Amino acid sequence: MKLVRFGNPGAEKPGLVDDQGRLRDLSDVIADVTPGNLSRPVLQKIAAIAPSTLPLVAGEPRLGVPIAGVGKFIAIGLNYADHAAEANLPLPSEPIVFQKAITSLSGPNDNVVLPKGSEKSDWEVELGIVIGARASYVERADALAHVAGYCVVNDVSEREYQMERGGTWDKGKGCDSFGPVGPWLVTTDEVSDPQALDLWLDVNGQRMQAGNTKTMIFDCAEIVSYVSRFMTLMPGDIIATGTPPGVGMGKKPAAIYLKPGDVMTLRIGGLGTQRQHVREWSPAAGLRT
Amino acid sequence: MKLVRFGNPGAEKPGLVDDQGRLRDLSDVIADVTPGNLSRPVLQKIAAIAPSTLPLVAGEPRLGVPIAGVGKFIAIGLNYADHAAEANLPLPSEPIVFQKAITSLSGPNDNVVLPKGSEKSDWEVELGIVIGARASYVERADALAHVAGYCVVNDVSEREYQMERGGTWDKGKGCDSFGPVGPWLVTTDEVSDPQALDLWLDVNGQRMQAGNTKTMIFDCAEIVSYVSRFMTLMPGDIIATGTPPGVGMGKKPAAIYLKPGDVMTLRIGGLGTQRQHVREWSPAAGLRT
Repeated sequence: MKLVRFGNPGAEKPGLVDDQGRLRDLSDVIADVTPGNLSRPVLQKIAAIAPSTLPLVAGEPRLGVPIAGVGKFIAIGLNYADHAAEANLPLPSEPIVFQKAITSLSGPNDNVVLPKGSEKSDWEVELGIVIGARASYVERADALAHVAGYCVVNDVSEREYQMERGGTWDKGKGCDSFGPVGPWLVTTDEVSDPQALDLWLDVNGQRMQAGNTKTMIFDCAEIVSYVSRFMTLMPGDIIATGTPPGVGMGKKPAAIYLKPGDVMTLRIGGLGTQRQHVREWSPAAGLRT
Repeated sequence: MKLVRFGNPGAEKPGLVDDQGRLRDLSDVIADVTPGNLSRPVLQKIAAIAPSTLPLVAGEPRLGVPIAGVGKFIAIGLNYADHAAEANLPLPSEPIVFQKAITSLSGPNDNVVLPKGSEKSDWEVELGIVIGARASYVERADALAHVAGYCVVNDVSEREYQMERGGTWDKGKGCDSFGPVGPWLVTTDEVSDPQALDLWLDVNGQRMQAGNTKTMIFDCAEIVSYVSRFMTLMPGDIIATGTPPGVGMGKKPAAIYLKPGDVMTLRIGGLGTQRQHVREWSPAAGLRT
């Protein structure tokens, strides 16, 4: 299933995308795509409904983050072997874990707003794991049983804040609008192998990133198992799993960063496409949660 | 006012502590101490009630985190000049910002559970700032107007996970039970100067940490203003503001770390006392959120 949340920020309704790509309203089945509704029984209940019996949604409403009430927005750094090689960095011996502020969450096609004075904002297409069941010290073999599904994440990053401001990475990862998620939460039954997904990102139509999740250093099962040793993962938590080669910071002969007016388009095979316009900061811009 | 939440984990009720230190039930006034109830109008409404008209609570119920639905649990590193001197570290030129997983939140007197195999778990008494109003790019002069109150935080930290496991600090800061908060949320009207508070922490009755918030490198106003440039602060967000000298990692001639059976007692003047028993990990231990 492809679960979505559609409508204005703060007033999204639950929906699903049927086999013909049409948006259907799930409001009569569940109140929202909440963490509690990511359990196997609820997902099976929804899967048992013939989509054709659900009301069609007219028009093309805005899409929000496909999960309401996300508790933790975790991310893994430097997790693609070809990206590490490109950056001339040694492979990490264990996952690098950081957190994006939950106020950075935004819809898959919402504007990305540059922080005031930002000159080094960058893109990162990533496979997102959405947790469906509480996970604490889970073994690798059992890890994916705790996953509800997958989604596209753009782990937007301000490189100066991340690396030149004397703190941890969190400082450059959690700005408002820096966490587009969606368009869909694709449940695990539709993702036969999360380690065989093509992913790419364009800026203004030019291919910047391209890769496949098969080159992850630590795969999804390992990541869930690993993180669950340091914090309990709860339903609705999202883990962004690292980015393939081609971020702006690493471009030759010189780094390329986002500027107002740019358009990012990013896609993961089977998980859908995001498209964000980049805007200058203003008091009304940015916060979507 | 001293606001509290009392009762079993997940079933806490709102209360306040009156001038005689007696616990009174606020359930008929507010459903819970939620982020939405930290606004000035709601706090003023509660303050207008004569505590003697509120029902007394019998016995000594467990206390939970004094705020329900915390969104972000932010922390500042290395923020006391005397602690930096003790550690022979240069003063940071701007605040070090990291995040504790919200699943680490626990009541002020709940057990602190050592992660499986942990050998380097440590204590950190800290002043916690509780945000009362949304704050984005707020000026220093205006920053404290966005604060609902203050509380005691024990920023429990696993030093191996924090510093020897190839990631950011988050990995050692967010284990279940590593974020005792409370006993009270003390509203700003009772804290005339947040930069003049004594704080201390004992382990098994022995004084380990002692300091005063006057030796903070970045004061509360500066911290709120600074963090608000990197992420929007929302009502209910907590910022732990760094720890004074005396953490276990820095003890001479050798570091001292927590072991099962230890008892931590910590206090900030006017903000109350916490007391935690340290326990070995077991499947049922730890998670209080």
